[in-house]
Amino acid sequence: MGDITALRGVWNIVPTPFLPDGALDTASIPGLVRFVRATGVDGLTILGVLGEAGRLGDAERSAVLAAALEAADGTIPVCVGVSHAATDRAIAFAREAQNAGAHSVMLAPPPLARPTDAALRRHYLAVAAAVDLPVVVQDHPASSGVQMSVEFMAALAAEAPSCRVIKLEEEPTPPKAGRLVAASPELIVLGGLGGEMLLEELGRGSHGTMTGFGFPEVLVAVVGRWRSGDRVGAAAVFDRYATLVRFENQALLNLPIRKLVYQRRGAIAHATVRAPGMPPDAGTVADLEDVLRRVGLDRHLAAGSVLPELLAG
Amino acid sequence: MGDITALRGVWNIVPTPFLPDGALDTASIPGLVRFVRATGVDGLTILGVLGEAGRLGDAERSAVLAAALEAADGTIPVCVGVSHAATDRAIAFAREAQNAGAHSVMLAPPPLARPTDAALRRHYLAVAAAVDLPVVVQDHPASSGVQMSVEFMAALAAEAPSCRVIKLEEEPTPPKAGRLVAASPELIVLGGLGGEMLLEELGRGSHGTMTGFGFPEVLVAVVGRWRSGDRVGAAAVFDRYATLVRFENQALLNLPIRKLVYQRRGAIAHATVRAPGMPPDAGTVADLEDVLRRVGLDRHLAAGSVLPELLAG
Amino acid sequence: MGDITALRGVWNIVPTPFLPDGALDTASIPGLVRFVRATGVDGLTILGVLGEAGRLGDAERSAVLAAALEAADGTIPVCVGVSHAATDRAIAFAREAQNAGAHSVMLAPPPLARPTDAALRRHYLAVAAAVDLPVVVQDHPASSGVQMSVEFMAALAAEAPSCRVIKLEEEPTPPKAGRLVAASPELIVLGGLGGEMLLEELGRGSHGTMTGFGFPEVLVAVVGRWRSGDRVGAAAVFDRYATLVRFENQALLNLPIRKLVYQRRGAIAHATVRAPGMPPDAGTVADLEDVLRRVGLDRHLAAGSVLPELLAG
Amino acid sequence: MGDITALRGVWNIVPTPFLPDGALDTASIPGLVRFVRATGVDGLTILGVLGEAGRLGDAERSAVLAAALEAADGTIPVCVGVSHAATDRAIAFAREAQNAGAHSVMLAPPPLARPTDAALRRHYLAVAAAVDLPVVVQDHPASSGVQMSVEFMAALAAEAPSCRVIKLEEEPTPPKAGRLVAASPELIVLGGLGGEMLLEELGRGSHGTMTGFGFPEVLVAVVGRWRSGDRVGAAAVFDRYATLVRFENQALLNLPIRKLVYQRRGAIAHATVRAPGMPPDAGTVADLEDVLRRVGLDRHLAAGSVLPELLAG
Repeated sequence: MGDITALRGVWNIVPTPFLPDGALDTASIPGLVRFVRATGVDGLTILGVLGEAGRLGDAERSAVLAAALEAADGTIPVCVGVSHAATDRAIAFAREAQNAGAHSVMLAPPPLARPTDAALRRHYLAVAAAVDLPVVVQDHPASSGVQMSVEFMAALAAEAPSCRVIKLEEEPTPPKAGRLVAASPELIVLGGLGGEMLLEELGRGSHGTMTGFGFPEVLVAVVGRWRSGDRVGAAAVFDRYATLVRFENQALLNLPIRKLVYQRRGAIAHATVRAPGMPPDAGTVADLEDVLRRVGLDRHLAAGSVLPELLAG
Repeated sequence: MGDITALRGVWNIVPTPFLPDGALDTASIPGLVRFVRATGVDGLTILGVLGEAGRLGDAERSAVLAAALEAADGTIPVCVGVSHAATDRAIAFAREAQNAGAHSVMLAPPPLARPTDAALRRHYLAVAAAVDLPVVVQDHPASSGVQMSVEFMAALAAEAPSCRVIKLEEEPTPPKAGRLVAASPELIVLGGLGGEMLLEELGRGSHGTMTGFGFPEVLVAVVGRWRSGDRVGAAAVFDRYATLVRFENQALLNLPIRKLVYQRRGAIAHATVRAPGMPPDAGTVADLEDVLRRVGLDRHLAAGSVLPELLAG
Repeated sequence: MGDITALRGVWNIVPTPFLPDGALDTASIPGLVRFVRATGVDGLTILGVLGEAGRLGDAERSAVLAAALEAADGTIPVCVGVSHAATDRAIAFAREAQNAGAHSVMLAPPPLARPTDAALRRHYLAVAAAVDLPVVVQDHPASSGVQMSVEFMAALAAEAPSCRVIKLEEEPTPPKAGRLVAASPELIVLGGLGGEMLLEELGRGSHGTMTGFGFPEVLVAVVGRWRSGDRVGAAAVFDRYATLVRFENQALLNLPIRKLVYQRRGAIAHATVRAPGMPPDAGTVADLEDVLRRVGLDRHLAAGSVLPELLAG
Repeated sequence: MGDITALRGVWNIVPTPFLPDGALDTASIPGLVRFVRATGVDGLTILGVLGEAGRLGDAERSAVLAAALEAADGTIPVCVGVSHAATDRAIAFAREAQNAGAHSVMLAPPPLARPTDAALRRHYLAVAAAVDLPVVVQDHPASSGVQMSVEFMAALAAEAPSCRVIKLEEEPTPPKAGRLVAASPELIVLGGLGGEMLLEELGRGSHGTMTGFGFPEVLVAVVGRWRSGDRVGAAAVFDRYATLVRFENQALLNLPIRKLVYQRRGAIAHATVRAPGMPPDAGTVADLEDVLRRVGLDRHLAAGSVLPELLAG
C-alpha cells in the first residue's frame, strides 16, 4: 500500500471533460492534470460524484483512468472513485485503479434500501481486502443517502486500517470532524463540500480537504498557512475568498460553475456538463464574473495562470 | 418499430442469475427464458431494477442482453431496461438493445437533483429519437425519486408516440391508471409492483402488467380471464393467490424471495442476490414454504412444472 | 403504571371523526368506542398518525381524548398518541393522557434533522420519566423518517422498562420482529401497517398488532386462533381476507377507505378526511364494495353488525 | 388587506425565546421586538420554522403572537407563520393573526404524501379566502418536502393576488428568482436561507429577503445600498460579511448560532433551543467568536448595540 499519510492537505476532485456533443474529451485530460498539479495541491481525485463518474460507461471510466494516470506519471498521487452499487463491481474498479498506478481509491456506501452497519462494513471490507491501496471512506449522505456514525467509521478503521481516511461531508462538518479526530488518533479526516467549512474543519483537527473548487490555490494557501502555524493568515485568505467559495458551492450549480472556471482557466477545452446535466444559466455566468472580479481573480482566468502571488502571500 | 401494442397482457420482469460467488451466470439464461415463456406470458423484460441492472458492469449487461435475445430467438418479445444517469449512455444501451433484436426498451427518469418536466422530456425524447423501438416509461418514484404527472406523460406520448407505454408504479396505482387512461386513448398502461393491485388496475382500464412475480402463471390466468370478459373468474384467481402476492411483494425481500422461487422451480441454478444484497433470512424462507403450501403451489416447485391446471381453470 | 402486558393481542387504531365541513365530530366518539369494543379487540389507540392527530389543534386533541376516555369508561384500555416535535409538548400530552385515565401512550421519534441515538433516547426517557404509563415506541420510518435499530430499542427498554413495547412498522417487519424478540425477552412487539404481515409477525414471536383496519374482527380472529395454538386456523382466516387487507392498506388510500368502512358500519357518522386530505375517488369506492362482496363482508356493513360468525368460526 | 408592497426589503425571522428549562420566555419578547426594530429592518416574521413554531403548543403560539404584536404596537409590521398540516387549522391560525393585528401571514405547503398542484392550490386559496391579509408563500422544499414550480406560483398569484409574495428558498435561488420575476411583474420575491445568496437574488430582481440572521443590520445595509443604486457598495458590504453569513447558515447549527448571537446582543435572555434541539457545541461557540472577531462584529455583542457605523457606511 502506498503511503496513506499522503492523504492530507488539499486533494482536488477533478471534473471529467466532455466535448460539446457530450462525448468524452480524453484529449483534455493531460492538460487538466498539469493544470491541477500546478496549483500546488497534494493530490488529485478522479471519477468522484462531481467527476460525473455516474454518467460514464465502463469503457469511458477506463479511458479517464488511463489518461489521468499516464498524465500524472508519478508526479502527483491520484485517488480514484470506485463507488458502485455492487460489491463485485467496486472491487473490479478498485483493482483496475491499482493496476493503473492509483495511489488510493474512494468508496461511497452502496445504495442500500436499508443501510445497516453490517452491510456497509461487508462492502468496505471486501473492497479493502481486494486491493493494497488506501480506501477513502466517502461520508456524503446528500448523495449516498447513508449516514455513517463516528462509531461505525472508527470501528471500520480499526478493523481495516486502509479504511482510516474519511472524506467528511455530513453537514455540519466541523463538529463531526472533531468527534472523528477524538474517536481515534489513527483517523485521517478530510473535508469536502467545496471547502466551505475548511477553516473550521482545520480548527477541529481535520487533516485537509478533498474537494472540487475552481481555484484550488486558495485552499492550498489556507491549508499551507494553517500547517505552518499561521492561523490568522489562513483565516485571512479564507475570508477574502469566502464569498467565492459560497458562490461556487451552490446546490446543482457547483459543477457547471466549476467546469466553466476550469475552461476559462485553460484547464479543459469545454465546460460541457453531460446531459441531462445543464450548463449554467446566463445569470449565473454573469454572477460568476462579478464575484471573480470582486475578489480579484478575474485577471487569473488567462490560460495557465496559477496565482503565484496568492501562494506567495 | 415493432408492434407497440404487443406491450399488454403480462410481461415478466426476469431476474438476472448469478453464481454463488456473485459472478454472472449466463449459463442459466437460456433455461430462464424457456421457463418464463412456458408460463404463458406475453413478453419478458430484462435488465430492470429487480433484474439488478444497477449491479452489473457494461460487459455483463451486454452478456445478459445477448444471451436473453439469443434464447428468445424471436419466439417471445423482449423488452430491455436501458435506464442510466446520462442521456448518452441510455442511448447507447438502447441502440445495443435494438441491434440485438429487442422488441422495446424501458427507461426510468434519470437521477436529477431537480427533476423538471423539461429535463425529463429532453431525456426521453433523445432516447426515443435514437432508436426505432417502443420506449416504456417507467413511473416508479420509489426507485427513481421522480414523480411524473399524468399531464406530463400524456404530453410526452403525444410528442413521441413511441413513449406511449407507461409502466405505472406510483402508489396508489388504480386511481392513476384511471387518470392515465382517461387522459389519452393512445396510452398503454401496465401495472407493476409485484401485481399487488393488478385486479383494480385492470378495473380502471390498464392493459396488463409488467412485473416480477415468482408464479407468472397466476397473473396470466387473471389477465386472461379478465380479457375474455370473465371478471368474476379473474377476481377468484387473484383473491386465491392474494396472500402469496402480498407476501412476495415485501419491501427489500421481494427480489430474494422471487429468486428463491425461480431457483426452486428450476428456472435458474442459484438464488444468489448480488452483494451487498442478501439472501432471505431463514424465517422468510420458512414463511415462503408455508404460504406456498397454503395456496397449493408447493407441489409446483419441481423443476419445469408450469401449472397447466391453473391456466386451465 | 397500568399492566403493560395488556399491550398485546389486537389494538385498534381508531380514526378521528369529522363532520362534513371538517369540524371535529365529538358526538360520534361514544359510538365509535362502543363499535370498536364490540369487535373484540384488546384495546384501542387514539390520536395516532392515521387518527389524523397531526391535523388537530390542541383543544381538539383534548376533546378527542376526553370523549374517548369517557366513552371507554374503564371497559377497554386506551392508548393515546402523544408524539410531538418538542419534548416538553410530548410530556404535556402524556400527562394529559394520564390524567384522563389512559392506559398507555404512544410516542414516535421527533422530527430531528439528524436523529442520533442519543437525541432519541433523551426524548423517550424524558417522556417516560414524566408519566407512570407504558410508552409504546412507534417504529414507523415512513412517517417519522427515523430508523431505529434493534440494539437501540433493546437498550432503551433496558433503561426505561415502560418503553419496552414496540409498535413495529419498519418494512419488512417479520425479520425485525424476530430480531427484536431475540434481543430481549422483555420486549413486547406489536405489528401494524394494516395487519398486512400479521401472520408472519406472529410466526416470529410478535405479541399482536396495533393497527387500523376496517374489520378488526378479522385480526382478532387471527390472533385468537394463533394464541390458542391453532396456527392452521389462523392462517386460514388471514388468507381468506388477505385480498381485503391488501386493498385497504394502499398508500394514501388506507385512511379514506378505512373511514368509509367505519361510516358504512355505523361506527362514525361521516367518512370525512380532514383537508387537505381527500375522500377516496369513486373507483376506489367501487373497488371496496367489490372486494367486500368477494370476501363476504358486504352484508356486515349494516349498522352495528359485529361478525359473530367470524369470531365463532 | 394591509399594503402588500410593504413585503420587501429586509424582514427578520425572529427566534422564539425560551427559558433555560424550555418553558416559553414571553418576558423576552418585548425586548426582542425592540432590538429587531432597531436594526432597521422593514418588518419581522414570527412563528416561522426557525421560530420553532413546530415545537409550540397552541396556547404558546397565541402567547407569542399576542406579545409580539403588542410589542410591535404598529411601529413595525409583523408577518405570522400559520403553517399547519390541516387547512382548517391554518385558517384558524391566520384568523387569530389577523385579529391580533398582523400585517401578513406566511404559509408553507402542508405535508401531503402526494403534493399535487390541485391540493396545494386548494390549501392556499382556502387560507387566502379566510383572511384579508397578504399570504406569503413559503417555497422551502428542504423543510416542506414540496417543490413548487414557477408556473404553479404564478398561477396561484393570478388567482389569489394576496398570495403573490414568495419566500423563495429552493436552491439554487438566484435562477429561480429570475424566473419568478420574469413570470409575472406582480410577484414579490423575497429570498431567505440566512441571506447566503442575497446579492445574487437582488441581481435577478428579487425584492429583498425574509430570513433569520444574527446581524440583520448587515442585510439592511446590503439592500439599502442596492436600492439606492449603489451595487458596488452593496457587494462590498456583503462580501465583507460573507464568511459570517456562510458560518451562521450551517445546517442544523443555524438556529443555535443565531439564538446565541441574539442572546449575546441582549435581544433575548437565554439562547435555549427547545428540546430535542440542542445548544451549539463548544467548538461552534468558539468558531463563532473567532469569525465575529475577524469581521469586526465582536465589539457589537454588548447589549443594545445596533451598528450605526455599519448603517452609516
